[in-house]
Parts: sequence; C-alpha cells; structure tokens
Amino acid sequence: MTATAFSPVISILDSTLRDGAQAEGISFSISDKLHIVHALDELGVSYIEAGNPSANVKELEFFSELSKVNLQNSVIAAFGATRRKNISCKDDEALNILLSVDTPVVVLFGKTKVSQVTKILKTSLKENLSMIQESCEYCSRKNRNVVFDAEHFFDGFFENKEYVFKCLHAAVMGGAQIITLCDTNGGTLPLDIYNIVKAVVTEFAGVLTNAGNPVIIGFHAHNDCGLAVSNSLMAVEAGATHIQGTILGYGERTGNANLSTIIPNLELKMGLTCLPQAHLQLITPVCRQIAQISNVALNDGLPYVGNNAFSHKAGMHADAVAKIHSAYEHITPQAVGNDRHFLLSEIAGRSLILELIKKYYPEYSKQDSVVKEIIKQIKDLESKGYQFEGADASFELLVHKISGTYKPFFKLHYYKTNGEFPKIDTNLSSFSQLKIEVDGKVAVTAGDGDGPVHSLDVALRRALEKFYPVVKDVRLIDYKVRVLDGHDATASKVRVLIESSDGNDNWTTVGVSSDIIEASWLALVDSIEFKLMKTFEKNIIKQKGNK
Amino acid sequence: MTATAFSPVISILDSTLRDGAQAEGISFSISDKLHIVHALDELGVSYIEAGNPSANVKELEFFSELSKVNLQNSVIAAFGATRRKNISCKDDEALNILLSVDTPVVVLFGKTKVSQVTKILKTSLKENLSMIQESCEYCSRKNRNVVFDAEHFFDGFFENKEYVFKCLHAAVMGGAQIITLCDTNGGTLPLDIYNIVKAVVTEFAGVLTNAGNPVIIGFHAHNDCGLAVSNSLMAVEAGATHIQGTILGYGERTGNANLSTIIPNLELKMGLTCLPQAHLQLITPVCRQIAQISNVALNDGLPYVGNNAFSHKAGMHADAVAKIHSAYEHITPQAVGNDRHFLLSEIAGRSLILELIKKYYPEYSKQDSVVKEIIKQIKDLESKGYQFEGADASFELLVHKISGTYKPFFKLHYYKTNGEFPKIDTNLSSFSQLKIEVDGKVAVTAGDGDGPVHSLDVALRRALEKFYPVVKDVRLIDYKVRVLDGHDATASKVRVLIESSDGNDNWTTVGVSSDIIEASWLALVDSIEFKLMKTFEKNIIKQKGNK
Repeated sequence: MTATAFSPVISILDSTLRDGAQAEGISFSISDKLHIVHALDELGVSYIEAGNPSANVKELEFFSELSKVNLQNSVIAAFGATRRKNISCKDDEALNILLSVDTPVVVLFGKTKVSQVTKILKTSLKENLSMIQESCEYCSRKNRNVVFDAEHFFDGFFENKEYVFKCLHAAVMGGAQIITLCDTNGGTLPLDIYNIVKAVVTEFAGVLTNAGNPVIIGFHAHNDCGLAVSNSLMAVEAGATHIQGTILGYGERTGNANLSTIIPNLELKMGLTCLPQAHLQLITPVCRQIAQISNVALNDGLPYVGNNAFSHKAGMHADAVAKIHSAYEHITPQAVGNDRHFLLSEIAGRSLILELIKKYYPEYSKQDSVVKEIIKQIKDLESKGYQFEGADASFELLVHKISGTYKPFFKLHYYKTNGEFPKIDTNLSSFSQLKIEVDGKVAVTAGDGDGPVHSLDVALRRALEKFYPVVKDVRLIDYKVRVLDGHDATASKVRVLIESSDGNDNWTTVGVSSDIIEASWLALVDSIEFKLMKTFEKNIIKQKGNK
Repeated sequence: MTATAFSPVISILDSTLRDGAQAEGISFSISDKLHIVHALDELGVSYIEAGNPSANVKELEFFSELSKVNLQNSVIAAFGATRRKNISCKDDEALNILLSVDTPVVVLFGKTKVSQVTKILKTSLKENLSMIQESCEYCSRKNRNVVFDAEHFFDGFFENKEYVFKCLHAAVMGGAQIITLCDTNGGTLPLDIYNIVKAVVTEFAGVLTNAGNPVIIGFHAHNDCGLAVSNSLMAVEAGATHIQGTILGYGERTGNANLSTIIPNLELKMGLTCLPQAHLQLITPVCRQIAQISNVALNDGLPYVGNNAFSHKAGMHADAVAKIHSAYEHITPQAVGNDRHFLLSEIAGRSLILELIKKYYPEYSKQDSVVKEIIKQIKDLESKGYQFEGADASFELLVHKISGTYKPFFKLHYYKTNGEFPKIDTNLSSFSQLKIEVDGKVAVTAGDGDGPVHSLDVALRRALEKFYPVVKDVRLIDYKVRVLDGHDATASKVRVLIESSDGNDNWTTVGVSSDIIEASWLALVDSIEFKLMKTFEKNIIKQKGNK
C-alpha cells in the first residue's frame, strides 16, 4: 500500500492534519498543511491522514491542492465515517465526497460499542454491522485501500465482546485491509491493551482480506491516562503492525499517541523498522519544523526530540556523562537527530553550529577565531530568546556578517510609528515614517496600514525600492508571533518569524524584542537583506576569495 | 511509617523538591518549598522527599524551617548518598549532615550497576556492597526508616543480574525498609519492568527487614521513553507497593514519573488506595497551586489535571458528550477535582453554546430570542477570528452585554500610541495617551513602555484607577499572540489572549484585529471590565431579577 518499494515492519499513520487539528489552539491554513505533508513525507511515515473531505469546503480545497503534490515515501489517506443509517452508500453524500478526492487510502470509522450504537447513533446493532460492511465494500470496490477504525473498541470489548468482533469481521468481509482498534477515550490500561489486542490477533490469524492478504491489526490511542505511547508499544508486543498517532501528540483533550516518542521506541528499543533506512535521525528536525508551522512551542521535555531530552543539569550527572555518555543517556542523541546539552556549560551544540557554518564556509574549522566568535554570538542571541531553527536566512546572514563578508545595503536613521483609535480611515489605524541611507543618499518615506507593523513594512519597501528595484519581488507570505515568557504580560519578550518568497525561493527570518514593533522590524529587515545578499551574491563570493 | 493511622495500599513518595528541582527552569525559594510541602501534605502523599541536606547551606536552612512545621498526612524524607569509598560512616560528612536534619525517613541512593561502580565510582564491587550495607545500618541504628534507592537498577540487571541482587540484599541486611528499583536513564520498556520487578518481588517474598516487617519493593521512573507512568503501573502490577515520582513530572531531561497521572490511574483504574479517603478530588487544585508556585505553566494537555483533560471541541464529540457524558470521557472530571469544558470553535454546535450560557442564566432556553442573538453574535465573532475556548471571561462579558444586564464602566474617547527607533530611553520605545469618560467625568492620561501595548496598558490603568481603585489588584500574568492567517503577512489578523489575576481568581480574555495594538486593547479592556463586573456583581444580579 505504500508508494515506494520500502515496506516497514510497522506501518505508521500520522493523523496530525485530522485528529491533531482537534487540539485546542491548533488551526492550520492550507499552506501550513502542505508544509506538514512534505515534512511527514520526508520523515517517511507510511500514511498521512490528511483530513475529512466532507467536513467543510476548506478541506476539499486542500485535497485538491494535495492532488498536485508528488510524495517520495508516504501515501495520502482521507478520513470519513461509515454511511449514515437507513440509506444506501451511493446516497450517502459524505461517502461520495470522501471518494471524490481520489486518495489511494480511505480510513472509515465506525461504532463498535453496543451502547454507542443504541444510544448515540440510535440504530439497531444489525444496521450498524451493515453500515460497516457496506461502506468498506463501497470504497474497496472503487479501488481504495480501506482502513477500518473501530471506535471505542476497548470499551466495547468490556461491554460486549461478541459484538465488537462482529464489527471487525463485517469490516474485513467488506474488504478492509487494516482494522484499527481505537482506545477512543484513552482509558484502557497497558495489560488490558496487550491481552485484548492479542485476542484480536488470534481471532484473525490466518484470515485473509478480499485482496488475499493477511488482515493487518492496527492500534489508535489517546493519552487520557498518560499511557498512549506505552499502550501502542503493548499493542505491537501483542501483534499489531499498524500504529496511528500524531507526530507531536496533538489531539483533543490530552492528545493522541505521540509518534515522535513511539517511532524511536519501536526502532531503537524494539528493533522494528517504521521509517526508511537512516530516516530516524530526521525526526528531531522534522518535529521542530512541524511545531514551528503549527505555531505551538515544542515541549522541551518531550522524549527523544525535546530540547531537554539530552540535557544535563546536575553537576554530578553532567560529569558522569562527560566520562561515559551512557551514564545518564539511554540512547545517543544523534540517533534521533538531537543533541546533548550541558545546561551549565558552554559546550552545547558547538559541533552542530560548526556544521551549519560549513554550509557557507566549508574551509572553516573549530580553531578559527571567526568560528569561535560566531558560536559566541549565537549562544548570546539564543540566551536572549532567538532561535535559528527554522530561521535559516537570519542564521546565514549572521554568519556572513560576523565573517566580515557582508556589506550592509542600507542604514536606518530612524523610524516612527503611531497607532490610533478611532481609526484614521477604514482599515487604517497606523501611520509610519522612516529615514534610510544608501551610499550617502537618503530617502524619507511614509506608509500607512492596519497596525504599526504593516505601515512600517510599507514605508520601508517604498524607501528601498528606489535603490533596489528587486525588493518589489519580495512578498511576505507568513508572519508568526510567539510570546516567549508571558509572565511580564504586555512587557513580555516576543519572537517574530517572517517567511518571505520571491516566487522561486522561500526563506524565514527572525527578530526578538520586548517591543513587538522592533521584533517585527528586525525580522523584516533580515528578510529584505537576505534577498539583496542573494541578488548581489557574486560580490560576496569575490570577497570570500580575498579573505 | 506514616504519621497518621491511614495506611495506603501503595505508598507515594513525592520528589518535586529534590529530583524535580533538577528540571531546567525550576528554582525554588525556601518559601516556595514550604508552600509545596503544605500542598503535598494536604493532598496526602505518604512521603515528601524534601532535599539533599548536604548539597548546600540553603538546603540545610530549609530543613531547619521544616522542622517547625506540623503535617497532617505526610512524613518528611531527607535524601543522600551512601558513604564515600574507603572511609567509615562516622567519618562521612554528608551522611552525618543527612542525619543532623532529624527526619523520620532517609532515602539513601547507591550504585548497583557493575560498570557504574568500576568506571564512575572507581571502586571494587565488594567495597560498593559494604558502602550500601554500612550506610543503611548507620542510619537505621539512629532510628531512621531507611529507603534504599538502587540507582541504574534495570540497566544493571541486564549487565549483571547477580550483582544487582547482592546490592539489594546488602541494603536489607543493613536495615532498609524499602528498596526502590530505579530506572535512572528512563530507557526500559514496560514488559521488561514488569518481569524484572516480578523477579525482585519473588526474590524478597518472605524476607523480613531488621524491624521484622516484609521488605517493601519500590519503583522510581524517568520519562526518557515517554513510559514513566506506564512503567510505574507495570511495577505495581508486578508487586511493587511504593512509587516515587514528582507531582507534575518535573525532573531532569524529560522529567520524572508524573504522580498527578499515576495516582488517579492507581486509584480509579486499578482500585488501589494511595491517598486518604476523598483526597483524590484535591489533586487538580493542588497541581494548579504547585504549578503556580513553581512559576511553570501547567501543561493544558496533562491527563486528569490539565485544563483540556476534559475539553470537547469537535462538534460531533461534543454533541455526544452532551447526550452521554461517558461517550468521550473515561472518568468523571469531578473525581479528580477537574471540570468538563466545551470548547467553542467553528465546529462547535449550538447546543454547546446554550449549555455555556446556562452557567450564567439557568432560566434561558433555546427558544429565547436573547439566546438566538447570543449564538448569532458568537458565530459572527468566530468567523472574524475570535475563539472563546480558553477565554471564558470574554465569553461571560459578551453574554451579559447581549442580555442587557451589563452596564459599561467607562467610555473610550480616543487613544494614540507611537513607537520609535532609536528608543526614547532605555527600554522605552513607546508613548501612549488616551481619554476616557466615567459618569460624565473625563480622564486624560499618558503612559510609556517597551512597545505600544505596554505603554497603552500603563495609560489605561492610570486613568481607571482614579475611578475604580480595585483595578490596582489586577495583574496581567500571561500574554499570548497568535497570527490567524499569516498569508497577509504584516497585515494579517492576530488574536491576543490575556490572562489576568487578582490574587484569588484567574481569568482570560480575547481580542482580534489585524492591528495588534487594537487586538491587545480589546483583550485588555475585557480583562478590566470583567474584574469590575465581578466586583460590582450585585448590581447585575439585581437587574437580572427585574428582567
């Protein structure tokens, strides 16, 4: 069922774009979703559950965009419910929309717990079985690989074991390739998961799907008891070979099973392949990227991929780790693309920074004083709240600036912004002016806009376009704000990230200040300077040769 | 070993003040520590591991303060290492300091993994056994109840099973009452924990301590694989009856075992008593209090005690929960002192909004025109980017405003803000002025600050304090900015959330605009109006009666 020759022992389905979008505070734009799809494909999960196309028009629009995308490792799945009661599949609008988006895989969820069928769905147990079987049949006849998600499976097992098995058989008879056992309320304990999954594995041992393959048993966990990761591992121990979750554990209530913890556990601790070879070391950067796109701070304490996953604070521990890495580390951080940090020392991440510097200056080594200076300044900026992960353009600029190979394109004399209520005019609440200088020539311009950042942006472009017409090509395509420490309230530090594009390339820049205007200004200036540097790069390369 | 007659099936040791203090960003003052001790005692854990008295003078000072405190449910434990190699216990300064603080319980940690003994400690296996036995003996002869923490026990078991057992026997022969098996690096899988704990339980079945009691087997987990909670439950399943952790999972790297998840799991899911009767419902308020003291935001997604643990967002789920609470809830939120929340979002149904309105106006029904108007306006605001999930105060204000029972406390004539570079003064980049009116009297005030939102906040408070001195009590404790759709870049809409406190209550308000100053202003005004409404609530209730 995967697009490539690679066939993992455990297939992973990521539901960040569907179940993850149920998390409080998560709201993905179409562009966010496309970025996440690419990141997950790069990581190499088997299936990306992209959404429920019948939920609303925005979802449909996204699937249409998605159909133009070429993936290397992953297959797209669309999610939907089994047909409504007392109608035929061909009359079920949602099912037809689900098929209209033309994904290789569809995930159909259906009820399997008796009291849910009778009290929530308000239909007969028999009709529910027909709904499951006919819906699977309808989709598999249209050449979809069908995953059946058995909602409330474990609660249902305790209530009426016989009926939940009937539901699973109905799905398989309808043509489902994978039957996923869902701990929908997240209330089941690890040993119960183990025993129940084992019972299902035993029940379906030797049973073939309509396509003639062995039935694959899947598992889908929620974290209400803090057990989603563990329960997923227990399901695998019991014979499940398909695991659903979300890469960062996003999900309703306490979240879904966190794949960034499960995948390293399966690969490193249990020796079971989930990702293409050598892809595990992409998991930390991919997680950081997805957190950035989602505009949610990555939990520092997250196993494997968190900033503190391999941090050592206690003097004693840090000393022991310096002696023997395994003293207080269960794996090497590099296995998951993470780094060891000593919180009280200066040696954190140096080799990583050097590696990044070498992208631009391959001839640099650890001993060069300029490298030491770059590392010092980066550490300094990080302590002020900067974060260069996901802000490559600001990082590259900084490296060139400290190396002395960067020539400023303009000088700011001053800016002044204002904001007013009542508004000056419709959608105009702010007016800015500034003065810049290029090669001894000054430009004083003004801009108006909706808010001070907008009006300042307009004024800056107006000034620079006179000297550098190429600035007209730069469009800002994304703008994100994160408050770093909310405790100082309106005087808190903020980090602004701006993503820009010139039609060919995208780049991201960062600015930090307790004044949001200044933070935005810094990111804005970096964005434009980066474009100018790229445009006039020949000069830089020439200067590098003379170094 | 507990102070009261209450004897739990599973004794809990909280190490927030010792292992928890190793977490990045945690730094407790003596007063913080005393508050935490009281909160944990109120909750009713068996042991509070208060620190390592030989670590520094501040720790000693804290133990001296602690000796004056009277606890209801918990017993204080002091933590320290077994004696140093090649000296006698009475010459070991740290051991003597440990005894000087005169706690009923001491926790002694020692090495049990062969390679740790030979390579880190650099001593013989025999000497290490003597260190364990003699240290336990030295403390138990001074009438301390001794808990022996076997560091790296599980890794040691895999390396040399025979030796780890020798270490445990040395501790018991020395007089330890509890032997705690530590998964120090957090790298062990649930089934391995189960099997190894079972082997230890079997080994010590029938063995009595020097005091003539059965040896108690304890377990101490770290969360490096995201398995600390689950591993603790597996240890209990295998026969352990003593569990160590930290109430909110604070700890080095990825943290310690989270007791706020483990305790409800043990009590509600496994039917094992850990806390005095009816104390489990204190766990949510106690956790919120300890998070507050620690100055760490409580993770909203935390099982059982997090703000979102019982939140429902998806329209379908929320509708089902409204029908049957158990539909998507594994326990009743009240069992742990938490609450059910229905998150308002684009996918939230009407019935949900009605339920929220009924919190303030129980007499309202779906048919009332005012309810229809409220729903209409909320849907309208949501389409503009408002989101009332997590902004209860703005929601409540809105409901009262539309119901006609809210009287505005002031009227804004205008505000003007500016922002400047270079800065006006150190940390001053902005100046604001505004004019408000209260009961026909006007106030014109100014404020300066770091950024326009800060200076506007200052000016508004200055104006309102003249009329409503209670405004002085309001502190803004958190400020969040989210860009709603970054695609319009610097002209994008932003949503600002402000959390405020008056020392007793916290409340959150929201503002949306494409001008960040206006969005912040709206949230700020709601925050202060909410406080004023609460203060003068009697007026509202009177008006409600006349409706």
